[in-house]
Amino acid sequence: METAGFSFELALSGAARAGVLNTPHAAVETPCFMPVGSQATVKTLTPDELKDLGYNLILANNYHLYLRPGTQVVGSYGGIHKFMGWNGALLTDSGGYQVFSLSPLRKMSDDGVTFRSHIDGSEHFFSPELAIKYQEVFGADIIMALDECPPVEASREVIEAAVERTQAWALRCKSARTRTDQSLFPIVQGGLHADLRRRSAEGLIEADFPGYAIGGLAIGESKEQTAEITAATTEILPIDKPRYLMGVGSPEDIVRGVAAGIDMFDSALPTRVARNGALFTRYGRIDIANARYEGDKGPIDNECGCYACQNFSAGYVHHLFRAKELLAYRLATLHNLYFMRRLMTDIRQSILDERYDDFARSFLSDYKPTDE
Amino acid sequence: METAGFSFELALSGAARAGVLNTPHAAVETPCFMPVGSQATVKTLTPDELKDLGYNLILANNYHLYLRPGTQVVGSYGGIHKFMGWNGALLTDSGGYQVFSLSPLRKMSDDGVTFRSHIDGSEHFFSPELAIKYQEVFGADIIMALDECPPVEASREVIEAAVERTQAWALRCKSARTRTDQSLFPIVQGGLHADLRRRSAEGLIEADFPGYAIGGLAIGESKEQTAEITAATTEILPIDKPRYLMGVGSPEDIVRGVAAGIDMFDSALPTRVARNGALFTRYGRIDIANARYEGDKGPIDNECGCYACQNFSAGYVHHLFRAKELLAYRLATLHNLYFMRRLMTDIRQSILDERYDDFARSFLSDYKPTDE
Ligand SMILES: [Zn+2]
Ligand SMILES: [Zn+2]
Repeated sequence: METAGFSFELALSGAARAGVLNTPHAAVETPCFMPVGSQATVKTLTPDELKDLGYNLILANNYHLYLRPGTQVVGSYGGIHKFMGWNGALLTDSGGYQVFSLSPLRKMSDDGVTFRSHIDGSEHFFSPELAIKYQEVFGADIIMALDECPPVEASREVIEAAVERTQAWALRCKSARTRTDQSLFPIVQGGLHADLRRRSAEGLIEADFPGYAIGGLAIGESKEQTAEITAATTEILPIDKPRYLMGVGSPEDIVRGVAAGIDMFDSALPTRVARNGALFTRYGRIDIANARYEGDKGPIDNECGCYACQNFSAGYVHHLFRAKELLAYRLATLHNLYFMRRLMTDIRQSILDERYDDFARSFLSDYKPTDE
Repeated sequence: METAGFSFELALSGAARAGVLNTPHAAVETPCFMPVGSQATVKTLTPDELKDLGYNLILANNYHLYLRPGTQVVGSYGGIHKFMGWNGALLTDSGGYQVFSLSPLRKMSDDGVTFRSHIDGSEHFFSPELAIKYQEVFGADIIMALDECPPVEASREVIEAAVERTQAWALRCKSARTRTDQSLFPIVQGGLHADLRRRSAEGLIEADFPGYAIGGLAIGESKEQTAEITAATTEILPIDKPRYLMGVGSPEDIVRGVAAGIDMFDSALPTRVARNGALFTRYGRIDIANARYEGDKGPIDNECGCYACQNFSAGYVHHLFRAKELLAYRLATLHNLYFMRRLMTDIRQSILDERYDDFARSFLSDYKPTDE
């Protein structure tokens, strides 16, 4: 089934790729970082602010919105776009990972997964067909196939079985589609086993999708392992289709992911750590709640053009965090998402200028990562 | 001592008064409602948003800012205006009421009050002279004399002693001033005793201040008692000086306060109840978290022009509250402060049109108050 309004144009492609992802709601420059709005809101911000920051593709989540407010409520609005007042592009994750990471109890079978809500303990069931049905109600531009995402430390047998099931489920998801204006991406699994990643990718490529995601990474393994498995997977993926590395969103991991040929990233990390006072600069994160920022008259980051840095001092933001004032979380989120947006713009430009290796080397030499 | 840049012009004065309060940072139309930003932030909002809502006079608090971040930090910025990025007018309460309501332990003497911080239990001392010293560092356009604010149910003897002490302290505050660009308002006390209120008001009027506040109300007595004591006090206060009813901020109490000749109001109520999902309409508060708003496609209030009502549905705001999303508190605060601002504009226009009695009667007949 073709997807209306969807295409991917690669402007320049070496190992690192610059492109444009055309979706029904927006033409998205890649590599892109997608802010996470699991519950149909990117925490603390309005859709206008996201647009002002330069974002035109954000994430929402099938698991969260299915549980609350439910498909009926969101469906009555005609989908998430209208419900939350967002007219940019939208991607929904299928919920496979959330069932695995948030539900207090789950039972997998070839049919699907029975799980309990993390909100009220009620029992629910997702099959590949239902994951598509709900995502069609939600109406995102890009939807994800239901996958099985075992822990990274699971045995090879468990991970191999998850690869097989994820493959079968991706095919069922594809068959279950009824809308022609949503692109369905399947998810490559395989844990840290390069051969299983290859088998998973090859099976999904064989079935021909408009884009491919890499799942089951950035969930506890080392950064070297993430990078290695990512590169081993992108090596196999078709050049002309977008590649989405799920759940990866620290600046240093994105820079490495782009080098490995990734086009799309998402992570709640930049917004989550912002609310803990961890603010990005090109030298690494600063902890704005630290006593050293008391009374600091300068901005959070001298080099930053965000609303927080243009209008407030680091000392004031420090005070807001110490006093647990809600404005703190807004300003910090604005700052970190501005940083991420500028990072992606810089990354893209350096790819277009054919100097990405230099950019990445220089960025990684300045940026001191935080273990997390 | 004269106050530079300060004057009060009455445009029209019957029982209800319309005027302009000129301060160094803004010309404020009265009657006015002042949003509360105790910790140098009106919770959830930026100064730009407050300006966009039409506010040019807000409140901060001597007690809160003295404890955190402290006079030294705020002083190093040159005052609260620069610290928080607010270029409108500012009023600081002296902290007399907060010492009384927030401190876990306090000891009053004629010298001043020794109290413990509600943050870390550390011991501190406020005298009238220190309350002025700190407020001069903070640099608000209008500052308040230190008062003693006993519980409304205290004995007549206790309240009478508080009137005497508040009078003596007001004179000491006046003498302690060194800045000429701040207006000092004393606070009328006297509990629910009309004769003590009269004695307190007459003593303060005798000492000649640029404006007068009425304190120790809206702290547990009935609304009828608040209205009665307010009217008994404004009767005595000079016509040509602004009158400020402290801590009063429900729509119905403001409408009654204006009828009693009050020019200025402040209360955390509109912003506090907003964060609990209680949203103002001209028929009373609605509880947006109530199940009846699930999936509601209309705005919170059909008649409202606020950012929340113009851009989002009641059903979406309901969802944000149910999901405890931080955007909920922003949108609710924007709505309630927009309502308050429009209420004050309508009040003022109806006074200028000499139809305030009709306006008040009509408003109070439509508006169903919430007991609180
Ligand atoms: Zn910034
Ligand atoms: Zn509104």
